[in-house]
Amino acid sequence: MRRELIGTEGFLLLDTVRRLYRRKARSALTKVLKKIHPAELAWIFRHLTTRERHDIFDILKEPERRGEFLSELDDSIKLELISTLPPKSLAGVIETMSTDDRVDLLDDLPEELRTQVLEQMKREDAAEVEELLQYEADSAGGIMSPDFLALDEDLTVGEAIKKVQQLSEAAEMAFYLYVVDKANLLRGVLSLRQLLMNPASQPLSSIMETDVIAVSMETDQEEVAQIVSRYNFMAVPVVDHEGIILGIVTVDDILDIVREEATEDFLQMVGAGKDREILLKPVMQNVLTRLPWLLASWLGGVLAMTVISSFQVELVKVIALAGFIPVITGMGGNIGTQSSTLTIRGLATGRVNINQAGTFIAKQLRVGLILGLFFGLLLGVLAWVFYDHDLRLGTVVALAICASMLISTSLGTLVPIILRRLDIDPAIATGPFVTTTTDVLGVLIYFSLAKSLLSL
Amino acid sequence: MRRELIGTEGFLLLDTVRRLYRRKARSALTKVLKKIHPAELAWIFRHLTTRERHDIFDILKEPERRGEFLSELDDSIKLELISTLPPKSLAGVIETMSTDDRVDLLDDLPEELRTQVLEQMKREDAAEVEELLQYEADSAGGIMSPDFLALDEDLTVGEAIKKVQQLSEAAEMAFYLYVVDKANLLRGVLSLRQLLMNPASQPLSSIMETDVIAVSMETDQEEVAQIVSRYNFMAVPVVDHEGIILGIVTVDDILDIVREEATEDFLQMVGAGKDREILLKPVMQNVLTRLPWLLASWLGGVLAMTVISSFQVELVKVIALAGFIPVITGMGGNIGTQSSTLTIRGLATGRVNINQAGTFIAKQLRVGLILGLFFGLLLGVLAWVFYDHDLRLGTVVALAICASMLISTSLGTLVPIILRRLDIDPAIATGPFVTTTTDVLGVLIYFSLAKSLLSL
Repeated sequence: MRRELIGTEGFLLLDTVRRLYRRKARSALTKVLKKIHPAELAWIFRHLTTRERHDIFDILKEPERRGEFLSELDDSIKLELISTLPPKSLAGVIETMSTDDRVDLLDDLPEELRTQVLEQMKREDAAEVEELLQYEADSAGGIMSPDFLALDEDLTVGEAIKKVQQLSEAAEMAFYLYVVDKANLLRGVLSLRQLLMNPASQPLSSIMETDVIAVSMETDQEEVAQIVSRYNFMAVPVVDHEGIILGIVTVDDILDIVREEATEDFLQMVGAGKDREILLKPVMQNVLTRLPWLLASWLGGVLAMTVISSFQVELVKVIALAGFIPVITGMGGNIGTQSSTLTIRGLATGRVNINQAGTFIAKQLRVGLILGLFFGLLLGVLAWVFYDHDLRLGTVVALAICASMLISTSLGTLVPIILRRLDIDPAIATGPFVTTTTDVLGVLIYFSLAKSLLSL
Repeated sequence: MRRELIGTEGFLLLDTVRRLYRRKARSALTKVLKKIHPAELAWIFRHLTTRERHDIFDILKEPERRGEFLSELDDSIKLELISTLPPKSLAGVIETMSTDDRVDLLDDLPEELRTQVLEQMKREDAAEVEELLQYEADSAGGIMSPDFLALDEDLTVGEAIKKVQQLSEAAEMAFYLYVVDKANLLRGVLSLRQLLMNPASQPLSSIMETDVIAVSMETDQEEVAQIVSRYNFMAVPVVDHEGIILGIVTVDDILDIVREEATEDFLQMVGAGKDREILLKPVMQNVLTRLPWLLASWLGGVLAMTVISSFQVELVKVIALAGFIPVITGMGGNIGTQSSTLTIRGLATGRVNINQAGTFIAKQLRVGLILGLFFGLLLGVLAWVFYDHDLRLGTVVALAICASMLISTSLGTLVPIILRRLDIDPAIATGPFVTTTTDVLGVLIYFSLAKSLLSL
């Protein structure tokens, strides 16, 4: 038994690999590599240079070992490594992988290389993969594995146990056994354990659970994840429109998807693209990914600038007005980000529903109003103390901050809901829209209030 | 077979339940409730009023049904419902739940009620729960289930199968079988399927996997999640310091934890607390939770205001300076949020490592510098065009925006890494610190540059 390799221990292993590599101690390195779990090796590869990666990948000779390892690797490193392999040996590696990993890898290849690799694979394997490649990569069909255990509903428990013993190693998740009729229609489900607990003569149809929850092949992976998580499933079957079972999605794949989707949402909310591996990409690619969102915020700032310059006359008369600009735009921006994050995450976890969002919106607006009044009052009093007890200036900044916070709360709450209704991912488009609009409207309201209330 | 209940279908069910409730059609309602999956009923309860929840919970008479349902319910609604139950009947409900769900529920109860309930439970059950309650709620010990299948290493396959058949239904996740020696030390693991695939006379010790990865009872749940996800486990064993197996953490619980931790990170990053159920809480609680973070940003704004007023003389001479304030603070704030989000998420997913963060920091700074130069140049040119081709004003705003963006990139990257090293959750403290500091330093640099370059 051993403890997990995370943190320090991982780095010790990384250092060992690097040291042996630099010493060109090939046979010692081969031995060490054999002992490292593919998942740990994948982690180590994140920290190596391109050159090191290629050389060390070369040492992993056996296709099976390479297959296990590639299944665990980050996509960008995976593509980097296999792009130099001849199609024939790549096909050999792919043949050792499980079907869903095969599909995953082939889906990422450039079309030409994919065709070449498929030509080199066994005809039946290639046909199976090509069928699966037709599904959208982020649908249940795209993530399912066709390696499941299906048993005929006419079998007895004893016959079923024999069948399970005969079936190939391929069925990667032998937790649930699916029971089908002659036409492969899904009829029921039972666990391997139930087989063991029942007498051999019992027919499967009498012990199986018939109320099976299934997803269709087009179901979005995020929805599949919600179902698996809600019902605490180890796997969920995927069926076509007639109810014929096509594959299963297992909970370990769902776990990866949930982590990846959360990371994508984090990145998208701050306009850093949706590529989870952005940190592994070159500097210029990072710059270009982050630029559009910043450009939107830059344009908002420039618009706010033109608003301010149109009030130059008033500003010259009461120069103190300039000092409050950062707090008014800042508070609007921050409460807007709070509101949009709460809404976007609420939509993602199902706590906010687009069709019955009324109560949620009303509550958010009340929260925004109370916070707006509080900070407005606070700033108003401060302005009054700070600037010769001028009650009018205090009133202007108090009203301005309150208005700005209420507007951005409304935008931060409503924009994600509207975007989701229009089938646009709210994580992408909400941020720049809310901050930009808040900046412009905030200063506009502020200076308009100043102009009329201070009689400038 | 049926499709999942999400979205429209869920709302149809909710409407049915509500209609029957309002009509006081108690027997029809009882029938409908019986057919609803506990997980779906939990979802429906989110949308009911407190009154409706209590009345409908009353209709669910059987302790078993109540237990299943409570295990699926949001914590805050769960507490609301059980607070009115007498300890004795609550103990009856708890006895029907699996051990980890029992611990979960009892952990949330006020101490007095917990003691009363424990007194009403069977002595052995109470002792088991009390032992588990000693572990931190978010450690492996706190989330593990003691219901696992452990087999003696001396058994043969045939004997093991008999043992599995005799064991109670309690072992909730009979996917892995753990092999232990006389002292309960974890020796190996095998799957139920392996038992079926091997001859009855084979000793377990010859077919088990001896290289078992285990976690210790103190391991943080986030780390447990990383391990389960990295190795694609269905469950991971939890051992004490001597290697004695205490329980298992199953992947379905890990899935819930990953979703919850992601939600908490989202909320914390925008200063909305760490209570995932904040949206279910009253308005004032929402206000109070969001207030401190906004107060920090308000203080930053006020500090920026005092900086600006200290440059009042210069501002009066070149009033155009006021217009650029929002774009300088805004760009700094936005690129700072991008950087801190990338860093915080990178730390959470293990892509950024606090001990070897050098390359990452250097890369982020280069990205920040390029973006700073780009937007500085863009704004400089705009200022030059806009304000009478004054090259000096253009230079001031260009340099100011570039400096402000570079500072906030550095803060957004370094602050989370430093906080993590100090063992403070970076998601909580990064936001206000970065925006506040950026606001103040941004305007300070801007006006200082203006003062010296424009010779004011």
